[in-house]
Amino acid sequence: MREVFQQELREVQERLVEIATLVEVSIENATSAFNESNVSLAETVIANDDKIDALTVSLDELAINILARQQPVARDLRIVVSALRISSSLERMGDMSEHIAQLARYRFPEKVVPKTLRSTFAEMGRLDVEVARKLTELLRTEDVAIAEQIRNDDDRIDELHLSVFDKVLGETWKGGAEDTVDATLASRYHERFADHAVSIAKKVQYLATGDWQVSSTPAS
Amino acid sequence: MREVFQQELREVQERLVEIATLVEVSIENATSAFNESNVSLAETVIANDDKIDALTVSLDELAINILARQQPVARDLRIVVSALRISSSLERMGDMSEHIAQLARYRFPEKVVPKTLRSTFAEMGRLDVEVARKLTELLRTEDVAIAEQIRNDDDRIDELHLSVFDKVLGETWKGGAEDTVDATLASRYHERFADHAVSIAKKVQYLATGDWQVSSTPAS
Repeated sequence: MREVFQQELREVQERLVEIATLVEVSIENATSAFNESNVSLAETVIANDDKIDALTVSLDELAINILARQQPVARDLRIVVSALRISSSLERMGDMSEHIAQLARYRFPEKVVPKTLRSTFAEMGRLDVEVARKLTELLRTEDVAIAEQIRNDDDRIDELHLSVFDKVLGETWKGGAEDTVDATLASRYHERFADHAVSIAKKVQYLATGDWQVSSTPAS
Repeated sequence: MREVFQQELREVQERLVEIATLVEVSIENATSAFNESNVSLAETVIANDDKIDALTVSLDELAINILARQQPVARDLRIVVSALRISSSLERMGDMSEHIAQLARYRFPEKVVPKTLRSTFAEMGRLDVEVARKLTELLRTEDVAIAEQIRNDDDRIDELHLSVFDKVLGETWKGGAEDTVDATLASRYHERFADHAVSIAKKVQYLATGDWQVSSTPAS
């Protein structure tokens, strides 16, 4: 029984790694499509998001089946519940990739953002890809040092996100309303992508360090 | 045992209703603060979001404790897992209210959006409040007819969200970059608020109708 359960937990982990790997490909393609105005790559990202969604649904069903059949308690229970939450965040990361790709497709053959913002978005995109890679690695290895790196990358992305607003609201901004709308949304999607990764990293760190100290449940 | 479990499920439901009620107050205050440029109301929303966050954490702990102690199966298990997901969506609805309030505070004493957009945002805000009220009612009564109403309100909010972009990108738009950024973000927050409500409504409908037909879990 215990051995079957351990095998099932491994399967949950493998599936999370599988989904994270697809998210990694998705953000790589989305940011390339965005930065290089590559419409076919954008279409690929949009088409592949269904696969990510289906795999998260399927993983959720597996997790619920494990809860029903194995009735885990204590740390094992936390692992399965965390898997449900991690899959939900991965699904949202896929959505952010898709939104970035949709902006690229919508603006094609033009680029989404004007010249003055391109290096900023190239750097945000590079960091999002980096965050996705580290996240897959973290889910595979449970090496909590990686969680710290993801948080650092996220801090840098937050700075770049703010710098987009500085530029858009600065005196030298020559963009029209469409550029402003697109830069605002694109920056938000890049930033949210990394936020979800940080949220997953916290959960993995939590599990790996066994720090299950939770405040007692108040009677509200 | 069974009776204790039923009592615990009722407590989960009551806590969800309690959090939804706070979200309702939060969006009422946030949209008033936004539309009337009321900075003290905005501060209230921002300060109260911690309470919503704490209550969702506490509800999650209760749900996990129930899983550990009662080891529910079948529909009962689905109910508890759904509660975890519903609380996560309620928490995000609270965040959207907070973001709307933050825009109001940031722009104070000015209003966030220029005159041409005010009636649109007033209507979006009114609908978000309506959606929140219906959601509390749905969680309290499990009357699935309400789920349908929430979806209809959400469709209308989506239309208004698109109409914001039509105005901002139209020839008569006189707003500067700051107005454009704020209108874009504000519209997105209003729209996302309702999206989360729809997602909760689907889960409640799912539970109430007992439609647990899920595709078999593929071996991926």
